[in-house]
Amino acid sequence: MFAEIITIGDEILIGQIIDTNSAFLGKQLNSIGVEVIQITSIKDEKDIILKALADAEERADIIITTGGLGPTKDDLTKHTLCTYFNDELVLDQATLVHIEDIFRKYISHPILEANRSQAYLPSKCLALKNPYGTAPGMWFEKDGKVFVSMPGVPFEMKSLVRNEVLPRLKDRFNRPFIFHKTVLTYGLGESAIADKIEDWENNLPEFIKLAYLPSLGRVRLRLTARGDDENLLQNAINAQVEKLKDHIGDIIKGYEDENTIEENVAKLMTQKGLTLATAESCTGGRLASIFTEIPGASAYFKGSIVSYATSAKHDVLNIPEDFIQKHSVVSAEITKEMAVRAKNMFKSDIVIATTGNAGPTKGDSDAEIGTVFIALADNEDVIVEKFSFGNHRERVTKKAVNKALEMIYDRLNKSDL
Amino acid sequence: MFAEIITIGDEILIGQIIDTNSAFLGKQLNSIGVEVIQITSIKDEKDIILKALADAEERADIIITTGGLGPTKDDLTKHTLCTYFNDELVLDQATLVHIEDIFRKYISHPILEANRSQAYLPSKCLALKNPYGTAPGMWFEKDGKVFVSMPGVPFEMKSLVRNEVLPRLKDRFNRPFIFHKTVLTYGLGESAIADKIEDWENNLPEFIKLAYLPSLGRVRLRLTARGDDENLLQNAINAQVEKLKDHIGDIIKGYEDENTIEENVAKLMTQKGLTLATAESCTGGRLASIFTEIPGASAYFKGSIVSYATSAKHDVLNIPEDFIQKHSVVSAEITKEMAVRAKNMFKSDIVIATTGNAGPTKGDSDAEIGTVFIALADNEDVIVEKFSFGNHRERVTKKAVNKALEMIYDRLNKSDL
Repeated sequence: MFAEIITIGDEILIGQIIDTNSAFLGKQLNSIGVEVIQITSIKDEKDIILKALADAEERADIIITTGGLGPTKDDLTKHTLCTYFNDELVLDQATLVHIEDIFRKYISHPILEANRSQAYLPSKCLALKNPYGTAPGMWFEKDGKVFVSMPGVPFEMKSLVRNEVLPRLKDRFNRPFIFHKTVLTYGLGESAIADKIEDWENNLPEFIKLAYLPSLGRVRLRLTARGDDENLLQNAINAQVEKLKDHIGDIIKGYEDENTIEENVAKLMTQKGLTLATAESCTGGRLASIFTEIPGASAYFKGSIVSYATSAKHDVLNIPEDFIQKHSVVSAEITKEMAVRAKNMFKSDIVIATTGNAGPTKGDSDAEIGTVFIALADNEDVIVEKFSFGNHRERVTKKAVNKALEMIYDRLNKSDL
Repeated sequence: MFAEIITIGDEILIGQIIDTNSAFLGKQLNSIGVEVIQITSIKDEKDIILKALADAEERADIIITTGGLGPTKDDLTKHTLCTYFNDELVLDQATLVHIEDIFRKYISHPILEANRSQAYLPSKCLALKNPYGTAPGMWFEKDGKVFVSMPGVPFEMKSLVRNEVLPRLKDRFNRPFIFHKTVLTYGLGESAIADKIEDWENNLPEFIKLAYLPSLGRVRLRLTARGDDENLLQNAINAQVEKLKDHIGDIIKGYEDENTIEENVAKLMTQKGLTLATAESCTGGRLASIFTEIPGASAYFKGSIVSYATSAKHDVLNIPEDFIQKHSVVSAEITKEMAVRAKNMFKSDIVIATTGNAGPTKGDSDAEIGTVFIALADNEDVIVEKFSFGNHRERVTKKAVNKALEMIYDRLNKSDL
């Protein structure tokens, strides 16, 4: 069962926005056994859209388009769909009622002809209700294939996919199973791993594919199996992972699942009834952002002191100035102090603290660019580790964030907490 | 001058990563007058890659591929390029020296055959040095068209584009100018704007295109002109923007330029020698992250107190508990207190403070979901504003961040600071 995604709009092509819709769609479709074989971003022009639809129809069973459904003149998708399906626009009464309802409730100016015209839909389509916007989704069927057209606004599209598109696709098609398992490894490059697992990789069964995904000090190994028997796929992949451990068991840290590491931390903190705070210098509030993005953060996350300036380490965390001068601002001692003092201020069970020099200049410290200290204080102890994360500012910070999350996660998995 | 981008790798199709490379490439190519007409994401399979290259060659003058150049077995792009150009791999001595150099300096395990094999390149290509990695870029020419193949790792790709690809494209082709101007409007929906500017829009000259980009309480209007005379394009667009002001001058807030609003704030803060701190509840550290991501933040950014839990507002900011109880935690009074107290703690010139209820549940306050207060304290005064940002958690937070940035920016633009 193959799908293609077509995103329509110049804003993607000129780089004004990053296309996040396609990744969401790819993940969702995969989860119901539909494989995305191509994503195509094109201009909002009739002939180009028609060609893209025809090409996709040749290769895929399901064709999903996003974008091009706004009420303004730059949006031609709906008219183009009429041409493609040899159809015409007719008034959809339910959609009109919904649009009028949205205007009554949320919009301060009166409804216009352009808004009402969004209720005119191709007669052959099934309208999919968009609770968050005025442009409905549209579902077409043609020669056994399904075409879905949705607005490009991410939260409107996501709601349509979850509530309308996926349930209908599940009903409409018998799908195979696609099973992914991603093994997380730390501390070895992709070519070194490939060398160690060459025999194992060469002996993988035909229906299992392997991919290497290196990123920021980690290499993820993704095994993918496709077939009709879900149990068989799972068992086959799990058996291969067991064999893999004989080759690189020492660098396997875990498995990527539906949850990110921060979601796992959030779950464990809540389960254990513990509280968390952060004291951030080089990570500049990113750890706090990451935790507060997860709904339910207030159950365990107290807050953060971002002491970015050296003066803030003194003025807010009350670390004595002579202590800072003695040890230098990027040092194990200062990082420990930050963790312990923030822990006392927030009265939390765990604090993670970061200092470092992300570059491009050395700032208030003598530490080499890329040097990062991370301290973890809990109710028993405070530990600190030193890292060297290279000379690329953005990557230094991201690696520091990843490492901090790992340290909290590892600590939570120890039996004494 | 048309370009196409082809990104190769299953990780994009299954949604494991978001393709940020294409947006970067789109923006960079646009800046030198090259228009991206299609972005295609495909699987790492020989026949599919060959077909995508042939299709792109029909439509575009410049074809850029990213991904598929790692040392491991899942990467077939290089061999496929040999087939496409009827070529064979030969050892590139300079690339080999570079790979050996990288291993000596940065990698703890010995160099392997798989790494050395990355120095074998198609004989017809020009190798583009990749300072950050072992896979070089490759530049091919065929029938007056240029093909560039680069690794998919974003920071390696970006460095290749800036230092190798763009300068060579500028030398190789005469390009037209593409001039964009994006007008920022606030407070009116896209259809209402379209209604107000209908006459103006209908009378735009042929070579100027208009697009509406609605997002989080703002609508951006993007005018694009293409042609050979840069001055003429700029003058024509600026003249149209002047006319536009007659229709919607009251909602035009400014223009999108190379700088984001946070970069403009950073520039103004540094120029004026002022310092900034944040006190964040509902924005949870996002404002601090945004400022510390910009290199040079230490010149003006002191830090942040993320008082996410109600207890942190008392324990860290020392707001008396009875004061919190009296006014409720999401209130104008508490937000003002947060701003003023953080200002005293950080000794900064400006503090922006946020509280609010982003949902999904009401938490420790009675405020409706979507209610956000933002306070700005400076050396003279403290002001607070109340907003209602809807019922979608992620969007409430993002709108709060946007509004806070606007408030700082507006304040900095007043003459008395």
